[in-house]
Amino acid sequence: MKPRIGVIGASEVNTEEYKTAESVGKEIAKRGGIVICGGMGGVMEAVSKGANTENGLVVGILPGSRAKEANDYIDIPIVTGFGQGRNIIVVSSSEVIIAIGGSFGTLSEISFALRLNTPVIGLNTWNVSEQIIKSQSPLEAVDEAFSLIDSTRRTRMR
Amino acid sequence: MKPRIGVIGASEVNTEEYKTAESVGKEIAKRGGIVICGGMGGVMEAVSKGANTENGLVVGILPGSRAKEANDYIDIPIVTGFGQGRNIIVVSSSEVIIAIGGSFGTLSEISFALRLNTPVIGLNTWNVSEQIIKSQSPLEAVDEAFSLIDSTRRTRMR
Amino acid sequence: MKPRIGVIGASEVNTEEYKTAESVGKEIAKRGGIVICGGMGGVMEAVSKGANTENGLVVGILPGSRAKEANDYIDIPIVTGFGQGRNIIVVSSSEVIIAIGGSFGTLSEISFALRLNTPVIGLNTWNVSEQIIKSQSPLEAVDEAFSLIDSTRRTRMR
Amino acid sequence: MKPRIGVIGASEVNTEEYKTAESVGKEIAKRGGIVICGGMGGVMEAVSKGANTENGLVVGILPGSRAKEANDYIDIPIVTGFGQGRNIIVVSSSEVIIAIGGSFGTLSEISFALRLNTPVIGLNTWNVSEQIIKSQSPLEAVDEAFSLIDSTRRTRMR
Repeated sequence: MKPRIGVIGASEVNTEEYKTAESVGKEIAKRGGIVICGGMGGVMEAVSKGANTENGLVVGILPGSRAKEANDYIDIPIVTGFGQGRNIIVVSSSEVIIAIGGSFGTLSEISFALRLNTPVIGLNTWNVSEQIIKSQSPLEAVDEAFSLIDSTRRTRMR
Repeated sequence: MKPRIGVIGASEVNTEEYKTAESVGKEIAKRGGIVICGGMGGVMEAVSKGANTENGLVVGILPGSRAKEANDYIDIPIVTGFGQGRNIIVVSSSEVIIAIGGSFGTLSEISFALRLNTPVIGLNTWNVSEQIIKSQSPLEAVDEAFSLIDSTRRTRMR
Repeated sequence: MKPRIGVIGASEVNTEEYKTAESVGKEIAKRGGIVICGGMGGVMEAVSKGANTENGLVVGILPGSRAKEANDYIDIPIVTGFGQGRNIIVVSSSEVIIAIGGSFGTLSEISFALRLNTPVIGLNTWNVSEQIIKSQSPLEAVDEAFSLIDSTRRTRMR
Repeated sequence: MKPRIGVIGASEVNTEEYKTAESVGKEIAKRGGIVICGGMGGVMEAVSKGANTENGLVVGILPGSRAKEANDYIDIPIVTGFGQGRNIIVVSSSEVIIAIGGSFGTLSEISFALRLNTPVIGLNTWNVSEQIIKSQSPLEAVDEAFSLIDSTRRTRMR
């Protein structure tokens, strides 16, 4: 199975956050990873667009009940109809989480990840636990993500 | 409809937190409120026990798929089978939230409440937003909760 | 814990189905049972109204994200925001199901009940399994429901 | 977006059903469709295996909370942790459903599809509505599925 990286962040973002998320998406796709996201706007759109540019695969786990609510760069819309309840599926389906900025929806996802022992890499995000691995750039964050998946998978094989 | 107050907190607690939660449950029941909680141990059990002592009604929104997993003081078990996904139902079903201490599960609930504009009253809990109303005692917290429900309901009637 | 009886059926009903559901609600309340339903109109409203007349307790497990969407006779709205996904919670939270008429939503609930081995009593409903206990009147259905809960609880105690 | 076809059926199957599901998976993959399924055994495994043989993409929407519970042919595990509650996500995420045999879990999915107006093509499955399009072979079923998606998409574009 290809590595699955969840990318989370607010649906309303500034230009810098948008660019950061876009770069994260590009880097994940370049290395053959699958982007898992919430499928909507802001960070979710930016990371999808970035991955799309590099022919990456993007899964959008949608809150609403229609596939067409997805942003334009989603390859596989998962239509939950569970509203914010879909946040836990974004987290549970990812091997590692990259959090970019974010508001309370993002904080709920970070909380679930920490609760479920899914590693969280933070790019200028909520600072609620020392378990969050702070990263300074998209490249560094994606490097860290692939490295974590690699070591986790190897541990499980033993 | 009777006021519905969600009480959240960790499943593993120290003696002080247990007593605080128990007092919160008693006070809610004395004033005719319904306790909504996650139905399991720790803060959830303590608030249920407190309300039970005063013949209050306690709803436990359970993560698992069996009613018998509920603690001994739950009057109405809601069996979701949705794991931590049930956290959002605890929040959405409550008119106001009282958070007592808590770990990452509690933080996910606080995040959902802030996301959905449900007021959060905190007793020594996560300090992630100025919107959380800090309270110093069970009595003060429950007073504040009923007062908030009262004013919200009146606003909606206008 | 009081017996919890789930009552399911369509949101659009004819006069006869409405009366049947209302009688079922009355009978459950008279015997001290809790009505669990989907909280909306049609059969859900009728059973809630019936129970309400006899001062029974009614839980409405709502598909939407607002408590005020509940019908006028709901005592405890459980706000899921999970759309039709809430159907499984109606079933899982009930010790026995009484199905009255119904369309595809009701069929999904009957299916879940049969899948989870929750007994289903049918009043002129879907005929998809011999496991569905056919009943001829509200009184008979409620008698059967309490009798089933009684024997199930006794079996578990042994 | 590639066509998304949900394939549903029991987790315990006989040899004939397994072969039918495998053929359905192959045909979907040959035409560039994505298989959506429940990710577990029986029909779900067979359709995944078939699609995998033809290098198709397979999404498994899992009931449990671990990706490794997926069958060996899942490319993208969606980890819901929602138990049978995940059935509605299988349906909502698909443009058309092919039902093969099946027990009560499958019936819950057929019910949801009929409730949500998602077309259902049946291969020797539950006969609960005239809306279910009966099909005689895997090839015919997949032909019908692509044809339905094609016409639905064109209608929405107008």
